[in-house]
Amino acid sequence: MASWIDLRSDTVTLPTPEMRASMAAAEVGDDVYGEDPTINRLQEMAAAKMGKEAGLFVTSGTMGNLIAVLAQCERGDEAIMGTLGHTFLFEAGGISALGGVFPHTLTNQADGTLLLEDIRSAIRPDDIHHPINKMVILENTQNRCGGVPLSVEYTRSVGEFAHSKGLLLHIDGARIFNAAAALQVTPAELAAPADTVTFCLSKGLCAPVGSVLCGSPAVIQRARRIRKQLGGGMRQAGILAAAGIYALEHMTRRLVEDHQHARRLAEGLAGIPGIAFEMGQPTTNMVFPSLKNEAPFTAAEVAGRLKEKGIQVGVVSERGLRMVTHYWIDDMAVEKTIQAFHEIL
Amino acid sequence: MASWIDLRSDTVTLPTPEMRASMAAAEVGDDVYGEDPTINRLQEMAAAKMGKEAGLFVTSGTMGNLIAVLAQCERGDEAIMGTLGHTFLFEAGGISALGGVFPHTLTNQADGTLLLEDIRSAIRPDDIHHPINKMVILENTQNRCGGVPLSVEYTRSVGEFAHSKGLLLHIDGARIFNAAAALQVTPAELAAPADTVTFCLSKGLCAPVGSVLCGSPAVIQRARRIRKQLGGGMRQAGILAAAGIYALEHMTRRLVEDHQHARRLAEGLAGIPGIAFEMGQPTTNMVFPSLKNEAPFTAAEVAGRLKEKGIQVGVVSERGLRMVTHYWIDDMAVEKTIQAFHEIL
Amino acid sequence: MASWIDLRSDTVTLPTPEMRASMAAAEVGDDVYGEDPTINRLQEMAAAKMGKEAGLFVTSGTMGNLIAVLAQCERGDEAIMGTLGHTFLFEAGGISALGGVFPHTLTNQADGTLLLEDIRSAIRPDDIHHPINKMVILENTQNRCGGVPLSVEYTRSVGEFAHSKGLLLHIDGARIFNAAAALQVTPAELAAPADTVTFCLSKGLCAPVGSVLCGSPAVIQRARRIRKQLGGGMRQAGILAAAGIYALEHMTRRLVEDHQHARRLAEGLAGIPGIAFEMGQPTTNMVFPSLKNEAPFTAAEVAGRLKEKGIQVGVVSERGLRMVTHYWIDDMAVEKTIQAFHEIL
Amino acid sequence: MASWIDLRSDTVTLPTPEMRASMAAAEVGDDVYGEDPTINRLQEMAAAKMGKEAGLFVTSGTMGNLIAVLAQCERGDEAIMGTLGHTFLFEAGGISALGGVFPHTLTNQADGTLLLEDIRSAIRPDDIHHPINKMVILENTQNRCGGVPLSVEYTRSVGEFAHSKGLLLHIDGARIFNAAAALQVTPAELAAPADTVTFCLSKGLCAPVGSVLCGSPAVIQRARRIRKQLGGGMRQAGILAAAGIYALEHMTRRLVEDHQHARRLAEGLAGIPGIAFEMGQPTTNMVFPSLKNEAPFTAAEVAGRLKEKGIQVGVVSERGLRMVTHYWIDDMAVEKTIQAFHEIL
Repeated sequence: MASWIDLRSDTVTLPTPEMRASMAAAEVGDDVYGEDPTINRLQEMAAAKMGKEAGLFVTSGTMGNLIAVLAQCERGDEAIMGTLGHTFLFEAGGISALGGVFPHTLTNQADGTLLLEDIRSAIRPDDIHHPINKMVILENTQNRCGGVPLSVEYTRSVGEFAHSKGLLLHIDGARIFNAAAALQVTPAELAAPADTVTFCLSKGLCAPVGSVLCGSPAVIQRARRIRKQLGGGMRQAGILAAAGIYALEHMTRRLVEDHQHARRLAEGLAGIPGIAFEMGQPTTNMVFPSLKNEAPFTAAEVAGRLKEKGIQVGVVSERGLRMVTHYWIDDMAVEKTIQAFHEIL
Repeated sequence: MASWIDLRSDTVTLPTPEMRASMAAAEVGDDVYGEDPTINRLQEMAAAKMGKEAGLFVTSGTMGNLIAVLAQCERGDEAIMGTLGHTFLFEAGGISALGGVFPHTLTNQADGTLLLEDIRSAIRPDDIHHPINKMVILENTQNRCGGVPLSVEYTRSVGEFAHSKGLLLHIDGARIFNAAAALQVTPAELAAPADTVTFCLSKGLCAPVGSVLCGSPAVIQRARRIRKQLGGGMRQAGILAAAGIYALEHMTRRLVEDHQHARRLAEGLAGIPGIAFEMGQPTTNMVFPSLKNEAPFTAAEVAGRLKEKGIQVGVVSERGLRMVTHYWIDDMAVEKTIQAFHEIL
Repeated sequence: MASWIDLRSDTVTLPTPEMRASMAAAEVGDDVYGEDPTINRLQEMAAAKMGKEAGLFVTSGTMGNLIAVLAQCERGDEAIMGTLGHTFLFEAGGISALGGVFPHTLTNQADGTLLLEDIRSAIRPDDIHHPINKMVILENTQNRCGGVPLSVEYTRSVGEFAHSKGLLLHIDGARIFNAAAALQVTPAELAAPADTVTFCLSKGLCAPVGSVLCGSPAVIQRARRIRKQLGGGMRQAGILAAAGIYALEHMTRRLVEDHQHARRLAEGLAGIPGIAFEMGQPTTNMVFPSLKNEAPFTAAEVAGRLKEKGIQVGVVSERGLRMVTHYWIDDMAVEKTIQAFHEIL
Repeated sequence: MASWIDLRSDTVTLPTPEMRASMAAAEVGDDVYGEDPTINRLQEMAAAKMGKEAGLFVTSGTMGNLIAVLAQCERGDEAIMGTLGHTFLFEAGGISALGGVFPHTLTNQADGTLLLEDIRSAIRPDDIHHPINKMVILENTQNRCGGVPLSVEYTRSVGEFAHSKGLLLHIDGARIFNAAAALQVTPAELAAPADTVTFCLSKGLCAPVGSVLCGSPAVIQRARRIRKQLGGGMRQAGILAAAGIYALEHMTRRLVEDHQHARRLAEGLAGIPGIAFEMGQPTTNMVFPSLKNEAPFTAAEVAGRLKEKGIQVGVVSERGLRMVTHYWIDDMAVEKTIQAFHEIL
């Protein structure tokens, strides 16, 4: 697989040799007893990065989001979220299926935001006919809106509004380091308005497995129990945490390179007839080209032809593709991809 | 309360003297053993009216809808429904809270329908990231769209599409008899495309309590167990069923009178400065006037002044009112209401 | 059915003519708006009888128990209860299925009690591996232990212990008026140690439908929302409440007659070879004879032969029968039943 | 921690240097796309060891058990299990909290078994009052009964009975390799009667993280979706799987040494006044000594004094201790522990 140019997602990132070495040398213990020193260190580092008091290592962003909801919402509570957000689209309905929480979806704007007035309209009067509004969920960067980052100002405005109405704010910050890099702010600034935030050590940061849920000690204590209930409690998970620590120490600063690659890729494709960009220039590490109606192929067909050339891309709709840059995509890979598109279209 | 003109809802309808007499004389038995003859007779009548094979008496439309979902959807399944539908708005999130079912909401059009293309877009590929589409829910008449009836043709098109995709169709027919009266069709024609349908014996039909869920014998058998689980199993409920039988025999044909009253009410109000009708002419028994910006009062203030005159109406937003005609609203009540609006505005 | 001697259960009780008259004359309103005066009056009466501040009319004892649990336990909380209690045996697993509550069952003693030391052992340390103990549930009278009443002293000891450990006590008092009659105490004395109590207006009290959940105003407010979520909110339910009021006013004092009939029935059967009484003398309205091994018939066969003679009894196991006395079982019915047993065995 | 003698559990086992090397060298890929070759290889190996067709890597035994239940039981179904089984004791009520499944507990016998006649009695008639029996869960070895293994014959008898009644059998085989070693059979023989089986790569097999759920391809396909829903889907989890493969290849044969150490430990302690063994001789890797009433210390006090000597043991009750042997407990550690007990008591 090393020979592939794999642009399907940044989830495909493999650990680097240095990261593997740190895993191999990790000091570990039984984390169910709280005795894994590497896990403990990662959780402290992660919480500090997010400006929160406590952190909990979990196996995935999906688990982090699920636990954030389950630890703070009861059966019959309602969570407000975007129709293009990860929780609505890609978490298999877990908040309802497992937690009895009711999703209340709002349309994401082109810039990834939910309108404050839509959030306001979603708030229900206190009446026995209604579920109880409890939480707003934002995703940053907002994957399905082109990987666009939500600004500090916007996020703060949602947080202030939510809190003024007694609602909590959870941020699915799977790629919050990409947002921070793009906006030239710290992740803590982006996470400040949130009660809880999840971010991923895999994806752009290259760790093989893991995310961290951050929040107050009280919420993290509840989260720990729910993680156990879900079966997400691990024993000597310091092996994985070592990769996470390495990722936080060495991988966050280089995300700007991925963003440059994404822009270069978009520029290169922009010159090709038959390709349009409904979402404008990429702002982080995602490129969503779509095929114009006059293009002779569907997205799936283009993906198939690219694959023959050793390039893998994502298909998101009949005419839409997704390409995500990451550590293993270098200048050469970008140019080869542009070239391949030229040849096909 | 008899002296009130109560237009808040048709749920306020009181049983008539004849209906009370039929309750007092009802032959009853223990329905948990299946031995209440009046319940059995009502269930058969109801199923026949809906063109289904079996029926189950339940305490409310909410319970009927909930059981329809729980009997046919597992934890993690997804139900497609309108953002203005009763299940999304007024059932306290029960399908998620109690059943782990994920709601997937679509915008209702002005005529109450969900666009077929929106339903098509809501269908998820078979992928472990997604909840599993299982059901479409329509409401007929569509209360929050002005009480508008959904046509036989529209409903059939949704049913055919749903079935072609392996989805079930449930109709929340709380006021399906109003729809049938307005469209001059039978309820069975409206219910034909549905796998399950709920309708209410209370509301316009005047029974004090109860709805019936209709469908195949297999679904109704599952429904019976879930009704027990919810605590909705009743003993000598034939008392209530007697009112339901009376309602089906005597109350369905007179619904056209309620619709005439609603139209007359709307015409009378249309002449008043400060009143607008965003939803056009009423088609069944609901009138949704809204106060223009130049009107000197909010909806709540108008409702308060009407109440001083012995008239109760519903307030649905800052400038929106709802009035529902029913058995206890006669010509005189309509004229008095129009007169009262004239005096206030 | 009037000609049957129906001893299967006291749930088969039909309303009396006076009760029907009170239903026919009931003043009603829309209870979802809190406007049904008869419902309101019943709820106040019921709460007063139980010595609680507030009451909520529900359709069944099962719904009352379910709501008590759902209103006070979150997903993952644990309720301690008897293996012979109604909630474990006969409520279709609703507390888990609908509420995510974990049952922790203890063996009922022959006198219907749960041992305090067993309850103590069931208490879990505060550890993320465990569900969170939240509630103890007692049933009074304890149906499947021979309809035996739990004493004021015993119930108080459980309540004190539970509260000392931070647990709630719910009493399923479906037949708490039978217990009170047998023990010559008030139901309020029996309910005093409980945070919530449910009792039934059907069964021995003869109302066709309904139970009341009683507790603090805060719990009843939560309960009202959950009742709506379950679909148990009814409109003009005053029709049913009128029967409940009649039952509370006229039916509670006569339960001692049912107990006398049960004792007479047991005495009469005791003389018959082949019949044993594992549970001793009946203390309330239930008689549980069992067939000795030398008896020539199984319980089902005996029930079949009794049915040919116009007598219906319950079959609870291969050799066990259940007979329950109630309003419609008079001296004559008791003697006829004894005679029938003599003829068969 | 290397200097500790840690007998609290075999969950504390650290990976060996060779295991770490295999992790460092693991070929990995994105397992959500099914592209992690090491995961795929582990799953095939595991399924083969258990005699099943398919396997799924999960983060813990708890998750494996939870998924087995959620993939095969619907909301309101009932699972029969022991009061001393892991699912009842140590999984935070997850099957109810997250899946709406009702536990039906039976008393474990001293040899760890559930009596067939108790299972038979737990089967409910098909009646709407009851939850629906769906599954029996056994644990092998049965931890809280002294780590005792369940025999092939016993397990087969339960499987045959369960299947004859339409029930499924799930085996929580967290330590099934210990059972196989003790009984001198293969794990596949022990798992043959089960529809699904979970076993742990951590614990005695020394891998840092992970368990495998094995069963039919259809169940594993459902399981994969539920794992995603729980957030248990991992990306480059081959890192962990490499340790699992090493464990399966090198660690299963040496479990007999742990059992010898446990027996030696028990023999050594047996000679100490004040120590009793309610569970008889250890059969696998667990020793459960209890302190006689005349012993001058509680279990917690003894554990405290042992800790001062560098020895950690588990406290399971006021007078009960648990010690578990594993890879990192050698002859010397056993003798030191016996010596320490001598000194303290």
